[in-house]
Amino acid sequence: MAKQKKQPRPKAETPKGFRDYFGAEVVERQTMLRKIGEVYHRYGFDPLETSAVETVEALGKFLPDVDRPNEGVFAFQEDGGSDDGKWLALRYDMTAPLARVAAQFRERPLPGQEDSLPSPYRRYTMGPVWRNEKPGPGRFRQFYQCDADTVGAPSVAADAEICAMLADCLEAVGIERGDYVVRVNNRKVLNGVMEVAGLAGDDKEAARGIVLRAIDKMDRLGAGGVRDLLGDGRKDESGDFTKGAGISSANADKILAFVQATAGDNAATVSNLKSLTEGSDIGTQGVSELEQIASLLAAQGYGPDRIIIDPSVVRGLGYYTGPVYEAELTFDVQNEKGQTVQFGSVAGGGRYDDLVKRFTGQEVPATGVSIGVDRLLAALHATGKLKGEDAGPVIVTVMDRDRMAEYQAMVATLRNAGIRAEVYLGNPKNFGNQLKYADKRRSPVAIIQGSDEAARGVVQLKDLILGAKLAEDATLEEWKSQPAQTEVAVADLVAEVQAIIARHK
Amino acid sequence: MAKQKKQPRPKAETPKGFRDYFGAEVVERQTMLRKIGEVYHRYGFDPLETSAVETVEALGKFLPDVDRPNEGVFAFQEDGGSDDGKWLALRYDMTAPLARVAAQFRERPLPGQEDSLPSPYRRYTMGPVWRNEKPGPGRFRQFYQCDADTVGAPSVAADAEICAMLADCLEAVGIERGDYVVRVNNRKVLNGVMEVAGLAGDDKEAARGIVLRAIDKMDRLGAGGVRDLLGDGRKDESGDFTKGAGISSANADKILAFVQATAGDNAATVSNLKSLTEGSDIGTQGVSELEQIASLLAAQGYGPDRIIIDPSVVRGLGYYTGPVYEAELTFDVQNEKGQTVQFGSVAGGGRYDDLVKRFTGQEVPATGVSIGVDRLLAALHATGKLKGEDAGPVIVTVMDRDRMAEYQAMVATLRNAGIRAEVYLGNPKNFGNQLKYADKRRSPVAIIQGSDEAARGVVQLKDLILGAKLAEDATLEEWKSQPAQTEVAVADLVAEVQAIIARHK
Repeated sequence: MAKQKKQPRPKAETPKGFRDYFGAEVVERQTMLRKIGEVYHRYGFDPLETSAVETVEALGKFLPDVDRPNEGVFAFQEDGGSDDGKWLALRYDMTAPLARVAAQFRERPLPGQEDSLPSPYRRYTMGPVWRNEKPGPGRFRQFYQCDADTVGAPSVAADAEICAMLADCLEAVGIERGDYVVRVNNRKVLNGVMEVAGLAGDDKEAARGIVLRAIDKMDRLGAGGVRDLLGDGRKDESGDFTKGAGISSANADKILAFVQATAGDNAATVSNLKSLTEGSDIGTQGVSELEQIASLLAAQGYGPDRIIIDPSVVRGLGYYTGPVYEAELTFDVQNEKGQTVQFGSVAGGGRYDDLVKRFTGQEVPATGVSIGVDRLLAALHATGKLKGEDAGPVIVTVMDRDRMAEYQAMVATLRNAGIRAEVYLGNPKNFGNQLKYADKRRSPVAIIQGSDEAARGVVQLKDLILGAKLAEDATLEEWKSQPAQTEVAVADLVAEVQAIIARHK
Repeated sequence: MAKQKKQPRPKAETPKGFRDYFGAEVVERQTMLRKIGEVYHRYGFDPLETSAVETVEALGKFLPDVDRPNEGVFAFQEDGGSDDGKWLALRYDMTAPLARVAAQFRERPLPGQEDSLPSPYRRYTMGPVWRNEKPGPGRFRQFYQCDADTVGAPSVAADAEICAMLADCLEAVGIERGDYVVRVNNRKVLNGVMEVAGLAGDDKEAARGIVLRAIDKMDRLGAGGVRDLLGDGRKDESGDFTKGAGISSANADKILAFVQATAGDNAATVSNLKSLTEGSDIGTQGVSELEQIASLLAAQGYGPDRIIIDPSVVRGLGYYTGPVYEAELTFDVQNEKGQTVQFGSVAGGGRYDDLVKRFTGQEVPATGVSIGVDRLLAALHATGKLKGEDAGPVIVTVMDRDRMAEYQAMVATLRNAGIRAEVYLGNPKNFGNQLKYADKRRSPVAIIQGSDEAARGVVQLKDLILGAKLAEDATLEEWKSQPAQTEVAVADLVAEVQAIIARHK
């Protein structure tokens, strides 16, 4: 007989760059997304859930994140057959699918309905996106995005609305007022400043690109480094030289003045920007838009304690075409080096007017925001609002395997009262294992009923949270005065368990 | 100058076999999943969210669904580089990732935690899965699964628990008691019947496979067709011949008696099964397990009005190793041919004892259920519990573009009172378009304030639902007696809008 060849066993591992989420991690994220969704919904935004897969053709190149221009998508080819083996890919953000949907259903009816999309179309969406890039620490290839966009509304009222909504979202998930600020800038103001600084015209496109990349490095390089990049260029510590935009020192001053134009209040900032853009139509228009946004928001009660005009917001300026906004958390945290820093950005967005142009040729204005779900969760952990703990179930232990039906009846009574509860379903022989299991599940209460207790119509309740505390630091007196284990009548089971759980809330 | 080559525009289309979900569809599914998740959680199950991507190696071949054995996965190769270009794929169900996680974290600590998985491990999960198969009508390549499994609990108490939980889930989402039944069968009973029918032994494996496939066709072929397949074989209408299991007519009777053993109540069914499996240890054990499940469930109040022992459940018998369960909705619907039929299956599951064996060599018992999310949504639509409609926002119309800040303040007041509301952000010039938009959004109320109303401190409220009704069938008298448009003081805005919305609930 031929010897059967033994197959090597597959390795049980999460693919590189991906993550699994357990228990409290899932609950916390779901809860946060639900709260954000409720705010989006209240603002009149409609949910949209597109498929995770798009044709590569429809996906195109749409990445807003200039920091990572070379990253790819996970793509695969359709099986041939009668089809032509079309390439499909996992979505890498939520904007590309929105563009496809907006182009597809602007005039055609939605599947199974009579109507096409309304215009303006406000939609929100939340779900995973995928990036085919080298995994690194804290950088994952699948992560959540949670976006809201308004398509087809040219008015800056649409931008103002999204800024207000963003503030509401942050408060809805537990960020206190005063711990965040939404900063607003405008690409048109920068365009105006560039015009004033002699960077208008088709032949200056390359220089304008260098300026955009330079001011995006303000945080990292400071004004000096950015000035070098605006002028002749900059040699970094390794000796590598980056070519500059080659503009005069006076014009570089104007660009830097723009980035640093933030004043004590919105009116003063606007006044700074007005003088910086004097003589440029686009710049004047941009400043006026910022003024309008601030006034629309003030009318709704969103003052500069929550939303401020801030030309130092440069992230995304290269991508967006009008107003740009970013939500920052202003409380302090320790960074990896032990330094105290502000928590920083958790959401950003802006206006982009070429959403569906690739598909239809039409210019359709759009503005939208993306909330960084993982960053925001980290912030809520940093403030102690989230603890990474889920409420464990009450455990009904099994003293006597033959009375499983009674234990099941007990647990059903608890559940019917809304209490999370389960019967221990491992091997019940070793009672210590049952209590170890209860600990691992962070169970608040273990319920014990041997045949003796059953005969007397009682159960033992073991308060596991108190028990753990006593085991840690109680004196003998304390042990005696507040016993972690009590005997109660079966009829009082629900009320007594509820009392123990309430005591530890 | 060289003429620039014009790129053809990409086509805006949902990839073949995929779907987009809009508005109410998303809300309804999310609400349903949340309700099911709450039941799972109350039973002590912990949420798990694995990555959508698995290594092809870990994924293996695990498909439970024998109807579609040839379907594939969407797979792609890692970029080479230092790595060896590993193949990855989108998960095709939730069981394969559970097997990987259970093997990976049985003894190793969870990421960022001290503890490994508890044992038993009860977990639930909900999310999309992907199948690379030819799309067809109503057959999609991405769909939701919503599973709960218990890993490491050998006792049938774990199976009983899942049956009870399944009943609770159906009621939680709005299926009335009496409109569903959970049917329970056991693979071991079938094994026992096969043994009694002379189909034991390694040399009969092929015949047992034919028997399994034959009884799985009971619904379609009826007892006569199945009997042919158990015997010499069957010629179908097209003349194609399917080879039979070749067992004697007396033994075929035994198999058919098993499938048809359902009696008036569980006790009578058990009695039938006992005589059919007499002489087979495995069969006797299987019948005893069914008895235990019924008695455990009865102790918790789940009687045969909700959960019944039913040997006619054959779906999944080929895959599972012990108890098998299926939830069926028993109310009538019209099928595509206009016939009145029972709605049928919406969930199924069972016990399988080789979950992690591929990875670790250990036999770890597991039992679990998968709820067919789309089927259940369809059922809720069929019963009228879901209407496919989301509550539209109140629309604040724009009569006067310059007073946008006031409209924004108005809408903020409504939202702060918890009312879904938005300002019209399209071009306000044509007022008819604003009302058309409000209709498309299924808005309950439009708010109108021109400068005249503003001066008097009032707004006009247009009851759009009443308006639509009147427009359809009202007499002139009715128009006059219940005007669809009323004038109210700005101070009463919230209360009056709430009153209109409440009136139409």
